Amino acid sequence: MAYADDLEAVNARLMEVADLAGSAMFMATQSLLNADNDLAQGVIAQDERIDILAAEIEERCVELISIHHPTDRELRILIGSLRIAASLERMGDLASHVAKQARMRFPNPVVPQELRSTFEEMGALAQAIVTKTAEVIATKDLTLATDIAGHDEDVDRLHLELFRVVLSPTWQHGVESAIDITLLSRYYERYADHAVSVTRRLITIVTGDPYVGVSLT
Amino acid sequence: MAYADDLEAVNARLMEVADLAGSAMFMATQSLLNADNDLAQGVIAQDERIDILAAEIEERCVELISIHHPTDRELRILIGSLRIAASLERMGDLASHVAKQARMRFPNPVVPQELRSTFEEMGALAQAIVTKTAEVIATKDLTLATDIAGHDEDVDRLHLELFRVVLSPTWQHGVESAIDITLLSRYYERYADHAVSVTRRLITIVTGDPYVGVSLT
Repeated sequence: MAYADDLEAVNARLMEVADLAGSAMFMATQSLLNADNDLAQGVIAQDERIDILAAEIEERCVELISIHHPTDRELRILIGSLRIAASLERMGDLASHVAKQARMRFPNPVVPQELRSTFEEMGALAQAIVTKTAEVIATKDLTLATDIAGHDEDVDRLHLELFRVVLSPTWQHGVESAIDITLLSRYYERYADHAVSVTRRLITIVTGDPYVGVSLT
Repeated sequence: MAYADDLEAVNARLMEVADLAGSAMFMATQSLLNADNDLAQGVIAQDERIDILAAEIEERCVELISIHHPTDRELRILIGSLRIAASLERMGDLASHVAKQARMRFPNPVVPQELRSTFEEMGALAQAIVTKTAEVIATKDLTLATDIAGHDEDVDRLHLELFRVVLSPTWQHGVESAIDITLLSRYYERYADHAVSVTRRLITIVTGDPYVGVSLT
């Protein structure tokens, strides 16, 4: 019973990190679209906190495996949790990459006017994905996994669309901007992949089925 | 004693996957520089084998934690090993990404003539890094960690240099080629980061010190 409390505490920390990884990408998108350097700095600073929290969760999981002799189900939860912590940590990194791109070009905007709506959509999808991922962590309600996978496909679609735009003969913003857009788009795309990876780990935790890796593009 | 054999067997599998991740990047570089589509296909096909082996190692580590009650040192080895398997798996993905880039532009070469030597150097550094990483897995000789970190810095330096080249006013190969070069360069850079991450996990396994995350650029 004390062990159940420990597992619950680990899960609460995972929710906290998921929230932070979510707010990081939200603020990163805002800093990108509004060329807001202070906000970008905030995201980059917050990433350290995410790294520390994620590392603490990982250590705690190993400690709990070490001091108890977990049942197979408990072990699945603990191994799954340390994996999830690693993915959330990486999502924080990717939000930080977006913010660094905004900071690098400040005070100039990174995203050309005609691509603003695409990046708004990317940001909104990232938000929907991470909010639902946090909810699955909290509730273990796997029905949201389908939504998350759908949002991930939408992100992939936007990612390909952005490639088409920067490679089109009508692209007028030069090589530097094309590279900025490509890298930014990849950061969102990888962020969404990691969220899908988290939900697959949660499926494994809940069902006991083996983990199915995310097909990484 | 039977448990020591189990741990040895896990380590042997890790060496096998490290070798595969190494040969994958070697072949990917060749396919890239020689516009060799068959070789590229081989790398992409081999990646599935890496994925399967890595997943098997991860499952085996969890199984060994479950059936024995590991000591703290054994647990550190097992948790470290499943982390290392995940990093090696990702290195295989990145080699596959390089090969896919070669395949996408076939029969045209992806790398312009004047950047061939830079990518040859990238490939050679990736090779040195993964060979030494495999050796640390085999021998636990941590003195190689310094070499690996040095090679990683060299890769980072080349990565920045490639940015400078594609963004220079004298760049004559257009947006598509600039994006190809940027993405390829990032794949090598991430490959090297993951190798550094593997050696940090090995340091943790050998010394018992906490893991220090790779500062991801």
